[in-house]
Amino acid sequence: MKSIHLHGQPIGGGAKPLICTPLVGKTPEAVLDELVVVLPKRPDLLEWRVDYFEDIGNAATVIEVAGRIRKAAGAIPIIFTCRSMKEGGERITLDSAAVVKLHEAVCAARCVDIIDYELSNPAHELAQLRQASRANDVAMIMSYHNFQSTPDAAFLTGKFLEAERLGADIGKVAAMPRSPEDVLTLLGAMWRASGAAGIPLIGMSMGGFGAVSRIVGGVFGSAVTFAVGKSSSAPGQIPIEDLRVALTTVGRSVTGNIS
Amino acid sequence: MKSIHLHGQPIGGGAKPLICTPLVGKTPEAVLDELVVVLPKRPDLLEWRVDYFEDIGNAATVIEVAGRIRKAAGAIPIIFTCRSMKEGGERITLDSAAVVKLHEAVCAARCVDIIDYELSNPAHELAQLRQASRANDVAMIMSYHNFQSTPDAAFLTGKFLEAERLGADIGKVAAMPRSPEDVLTLLGAMWRASGAAGIPLIGMSMGGFGAVSRIVGGVFGSAVTFAVGKSSSAPGQIPIEDLRVALTTVGRSVTGNIS
Repeated sequence: MKSIHLHGQPIGGGAKPLICTPLVGKTPEAVLDELVVVLPKRPDLLEWRVDYFEDIGNAATVIEVAGRIRKAAGAIPIIFTCRSMKEGGERITLDSAAVVKLHEAVCAARCVDIIDYELSNPAHELAQLRQASRANDVAMIMSYHNFQSTPDAAFLTGKFLEAERLGADIGKVAAMPRSPEDVLTLLGAMWRASGAAGIPLIGMSMGGFGAVSRIVGGVFGSAVTFAVGKSSSAPGQIPIEDLRVALTTVGRSVTGNIS
Repeated sequence: MKSIHLHGQPIGGGAKPLICTPLVGKTPEAVLDELVVVLPKRPDLLEWRVDYFEDIGNAATVIEVAGRIRKAAGAIPIIFTCRSMKEGGERITLDSAAVVKLHEAVCAARCVDIIDYELSNPAHELAQLRQASRANDVAMIMSYHNFQSTPDAAFLTGKFLEAERLGADIGKVAAMPRSPEDVLTLLGAMWRASGAAGIPLIGMSMGGFGAVSRIVGGVFGSAVTFAVGKSSSAPGQIPIEDLRVALTTVGRSVTGNIS
């Protein structure tokens, strides 16, 4: 697994994937309330899912709340994500151009560490936000989500490599399995992509049995796993306390510190 | 995952794989000392690895010790296994005919619940022990182990189905991965075999990253996972306490009792 670098420094220790906890509050107060519950659980990363935020149309408010999250979170890096409806996000009032503008404003304000933008967006938007993020020392995830099914391994590997080709700092793929075998397809595709790609990758299979990928994904190259702090943002997320214990067991096993 | 039946009754609750702990003492005292450590950890099954036992040549002693294990273990079923050297077992003094005789004596004494015999043994021995075990209400695992590598999925699926074809109550496959991808091959083969076979299956990938299969194997059809009580009997086994916690997390995830 390759380490994620932010502001020129690697984050995390290497062997175990980082635990990222989503924030899904609808109001500034709800987001700050979530932080009160989530921060004592010591996530390695926070993802603010701004598509849940009612006042998403007001860039000044979004930037102000991001600043308050950062102040509360201290050294914990923040991912800023406006998941689109077609990739599993909430319904929002902004059109595509306004979403791009919001990301540009957030990058310019340097109030977050990472933005996540979907590969399904137009190439010029991806390029525009790549430029805006790079100019402001904000890292960029390019992502693919499929809440219906798990495409074949070649397609999934291709999505990871497409993220790298388009200049992402991190490639992310999440897919819904229809059988346990689909979980293996996702993990296998990520493993092959992690051998071929020069950037760190994040991958998971969603839902019930997909949850096993949130536990063992690090062995197959995933740099981050998403866990529930207060509320989940996708099906199959495991409570952070349980996930941390399971990751420790997996980590000990893989490094051979077991009988 | 299909339940294992012993003496006409299913054992275990279904959703989570059973935890089996090996006993590897060289002497009766060592075996009984192991039990003192292992039993408080509440394994679901015990496997007496008699190939570790110095006095294996004395059937009366073996039967007596099996009886003492059973008395100490109470309701916990006992698997009797003399793993051959070529499948990862210890060097023993008995020839093949004597090993078959020992198994017959152990079945006749009804001092264990399950015997494990390898598919690589001659067909007439497998048939002979199938008859001896069935006549004495002892269940039979037929197994395949490869400590060097992981054969392809078709071969592994074939081994599970061969066990069923030869009349096994349970089919078992363990293989050594050379890459994380081999772990996926083993899990995928077991998943496909579990759809095709009418008997419960046990499968695991060994060694460091193979250990993840000991945690998530139940999702792919494995009815049993082997964990360390006091001493391990194969590379990659996880301490029983850690494994139980991880299995609980996996079980909750799969049954959807998560956020």
